[in-house]
Amino acid sequence: MSYEHKLKSLGVILPSPPTPVANYVPAVKVGALLFLSGVLPFRDGHLLLTGKVGDGLSVEQGQEVAKIALLNALAIVRAEIGSLDRVLRVVKMVGYVASAPGFCDQPQVLNGASDLLVAVFGEEGRHARVAVGVAELPRQAPVELDLLLHVKD
Amino acid sequence: MSYEHKLKSLGVILPSPPTPVANYVPAVKVGALLFLSGVLPFRDGHLLLTGKVGDGLSVEQGQEVAKIALLNALAIVRAEIGSLDRVLRVVKMVGYVASAPGFCDQPQVLNGASDLLVAVFGEEGRHARVAVGVAELPRQAPVELDLLLHVKD
Amino acid sequence: MSYEHKLKSLGVILPSPPTPVANYVPAVKVGALLFLSGVLPFRDGHLLLTGKVGDGLSVEQGQEVAKIALLNALAIVRAEIGSLDRVLRVVKMVGYVASAPGFCDQPQVLNGASDLLVAVFGEEGRHARVAVGVAELPRQAPVELDLLLHVKD
Repeated sequence: MSYEHKLKSLGVILPSPPTPVANYVPAVKVGALLFLSGVLPFRDGHLLLTGKVGDGLSVEQGQEVAKIALLNALAIVRAEIGSLDRVLRVVKMVGYVASAPGFCDQPQVLNGASDLLVAVFGEEGRHARVAVGVAELPRQAPVELDLLLHVKD
Repeated sequence: MSYEHKLKSLGVILPSPPTPVANYVPAVKVGALLFLSGVLPFRDGHLLLTGKVGDGLSVEQGQEVAKIALLNALAIVRAEIGSLDRVLRVVKMVGYVASAPGFCDQPQVLNGASDLLVAVFGEEGRHARVAVGVAELPRQAPVELDLLLHVKD
Repeated sequence: MSYEHKLKSLGVILPSPPTPVANYVPAVKVGALLFLSGVLPFRDGHLLLTGKVGDGLSVEQGQEVAKIALLNALAIVRAEIGSLDRVLRVVKMVGYVASAPGFCDQPQVLNGASDLLVAVFGEEGRHARVAVGVAELPRQAPVELDLLLHVKD
């Protein structure tokens, strides 16, 4: 099954790709490497949730937010290279989780994104990953994802 | 106009490239990808400002600091590849902003660097970007930039 | 002397490579670039130390922890490409240091890893580096390292 069909079979509908509001672009491709800008959990032009995980937001809410952020990343990928079927491998994801003091389950939060990557892309969706807890993210987003993909040149 | 001339026409003079004080180097080139070490806002051997944006430092000061950090990055690029005119594309910038609790305008701060990149390199200066707020940066720098460029091999 | 022999001559024994507990993998190779997942200072299945540098943990303890995290990274590299002797260059290390408020000596902490890289790989171990202080890391690890290497294809 193609990745686009797999996405559809999972009932996932991608949002419109987010529009940068400053002098940067959603992604830059160099050869077969596609570097994405950081994505936030936008839905219908608004952040799904704001705040810090571990204080007000639960791990489960963090996972949902990570998944929504990933949908924004996939929307960028499709817009940049025409179709998810041109993805060869999800190479790496750095996930930043806005964390309340003492919260250290960032990996569980990011599974919300990693699990969907593997559900859509299978073995080619298994990526290197870095999980970091940070003090503050743009617009008080609870999660920001930074993705690198290997795509058809 | 060449990028070096454009820089001059903007009245920008690059500092001496910063010297790492430990077992690392300012940049490593692999093929046509130039990976830079993190740059801080040094001017004449000292940080232009220290502290956190949103507490003592304004967004405007943060933007100025981001611009100065970028000049250090461009100085490294010139030293590594001989001339800014050998830049093919600014691929990506990860910007870390030392943020006071509750400060979430990291993107505005980083525009101080992004705007200059586009002023110098035009369309080839439009980069993928990740904006992150962090607790502490080396030497209490308010901003640290991590850049990746595509350069002539 | 080969890198594997150099490592042995330094008396360094690598741990078993850490096993990801979620839908990600220890490393992904694209062409000659090997992207590693973030590594924590595991020894015998447990974190060597937990907590924040600058509050409870000294710079020296942070350096030791950075070194142990690096050993986990080298174990992944060996497992992925068969031998450290297939490393062409250590390209880049992003080091995240869990930092107490006001602690800004992240570069000194990361020297614990950078010094060992140069001890093992010599000039080819000199890497671009980004040092960042963060609020919280997974499992309360004091240090997390994110490495990129150029390896034989």
